[in-house]
Amino acid sequence: MAGRKIRFAIVGLDHRHVYNHTRLLLNAGAEFAAYYSDKPELIAEYAAAYPGIRAAGSLAEVLEDPAIDLIAGSPMPARRAEISVLAMRHGKDVVVDKPAVVSFDELERVQQVQRETGRIWCLYSNEHHGRRCTVLAERLVAEGAIGSVVQTTGFGPHSISLAPRPAWFWDRTVSGGIIADLGAHQFEQFLFFTGSRTASIVHAQTGNFAHPGHPEFEDYGEVSVTGDGGIGWFRVDWYSPGALGAPGDIRLFLLGTDGYMEMRKYFDAGRPAGERLLVV
Amino acid sequence: MAGRKIRFAIVGLDHRHVYNHTRLLLNAGAEFAAYYSDKPELIAEYAAAYPGIRAAGSLAEVLEDPAIDLIAGSPMPARRAEISVLAMRHGKDVVVDKPAVVSFDELERVQQVQRETGRIWCLYSNEHHGRRCTVLAERLVAEGAIGSVVQTTGFGPHSISLAPRPAWFWDRTVSGGIIADLGAHQFEQFLFFTGSRTASIVHAQTGNFAHPGHPEFEDYGEVSVTGDGGIGWFRVDWYSPGALGAPGDIRLFLLGTDGYMEMRKYFDAGRPAGERLLVV
Repeated sequence: MAGRKIRFAIVGLDHRHVYNHTRLLLNAGAEFAAYYSDKPELIAEYAAAYPGIRAAGSLAEVLEDPAIDLIAGSPMPARRAEISVLAMRHGKDVVVDKPAVVSFDELERVQQVQRETGRIWCLYSNEHHGRRCTVLAERLVAEGAIGSVVQTTGFGPHSISLAPRPAWFWDRTVSGGIIADLGAHQFEQFLFFTGSRTASIVHAQTGNFAHPGHPEFEDYGEVSVTGDGGIGWFRVDWYSPGALGAPGDIRLFLLGTDGYMEMRKYFDAGRPAGERLLVV
Repeated sequence: MAGRKIRFAIVGLDHRHVYNHTRLLLNAGAEFAAYYSDKPELIAEYAAAYPGIRAAGSLAEVLEDPAIDLIAGSPMPARRAEISVLAMRHGKDVVVDKPAVVSFDELERVQQVQRETGRIWCLYSNEHHGRRCTVLAERLVAEGAIGSVVQTTGFGPHSISLAPRPAWFWDRTVSGGIIADLGAHQFEQFLFFTGSRTASIVHAQTGNFAHPGHPEFEDYGEVSVTGDGGIGWFRVDWYSPGALGAPGDIRLFLLGTDGYMEMRKYFDAGRPAGERLLVV
């Protein structure tokens, strides 16, 4: 590919993270070739943001286009593994949204196809890569600012009313449930900051305390995890008031042997707008 | 006792919480009769703070003084249950420091003697009763400010270097271990704020990540608990730098169905000194 830009296509407009993917790739210098959604009603808003780009008529059209090198985007969670597999089998690299898979079977299939095809398959987790405070924490931890990271604590509260929620959002078989959907960020950051390569869940629970109209829905979840590099705990929920005007008061705490850090990812209650990293 | 003040004695000067007990009782209008410590070397500093008060020569002298109505103070954790029992058996009420007991056997014995004697036996937990932010949160939660409390998250980091640590501090059989010692605050607040009367520990672990010189010592602990009024998780540790000049950056988060609260109990990093309550 020497001498030409990487060309990407966006597949799936179901979550607004698709805008993160598009910006990320354009900022990195990639060329935007086409996009596809299986839901025509989602196209208008996206098309207005990227008016010069071709809307493909089918997934096959994107997959079979040899000029496309990479697939990104945000289809419904339960479709992501399949699209990853199809993309890699068609010789394309993949940037996948979180949660990348919603079952262990899907994970195994994606890993197997990645090994067979040798394609690049990577996860874009916006609570990590899209937040400057987290990227800065990454550098400071590597420099030893807080000693050895013993534990990570994550809060992933989210506002249910910030974005319109389609019907599938309430269906755990499609969304993956709260621990896959919101917890994916938390697991990724736990593994990253403790340097763990393997980990076990030692305790997990979910509940529905505030959404009796959707009895199958999980509006609260928590997980304790032990890895080979440290331990972690997080909780996630759908209780944040929409009036916050942010995904939620999302935090990550790193407890080190010589100090600690706290990331206030979207705002810092009672202070001027903006994310913050505290290092003590 | 109509017509005269309640008279109290302090038993045990092993932890600085003894100063909280003394102030609490004096502020409430009680009369300070005497104090006793089995460690003469601890008396000088305390005597300087309360120069007019009699240092009793033995525990028996305090217990057998019919003019003393109430025993407070802070002996070593492993002595507290025994002193509670002796005090109640001698017809005295008790204000005990945390942790009040260090085993289930001790708890059962204290409860049994309390039922037999009908004395008042109560716990003073300074992270709750001694912090204005927590007392204010109590009122606001009762008024429904954040809806129904679903979950409490507690951070109990402490500085090991803030106060001189006697030899017994490193001995788990005397201190009770980190979950009894520092976790006592956390359990009390969990039960209080979720309104739980019964609860089970669903997961707990401790570790020693930063104190290799004291291999038996626990410098980290965490607990997940499920009660009949809500769920909770906390972590406690001994990693806070002494330079903070506070017990630690101790926090309590209340997650409600209609909002959340955060108590920053001793300071608020990067802001002017003082404790804070955030309500969102």
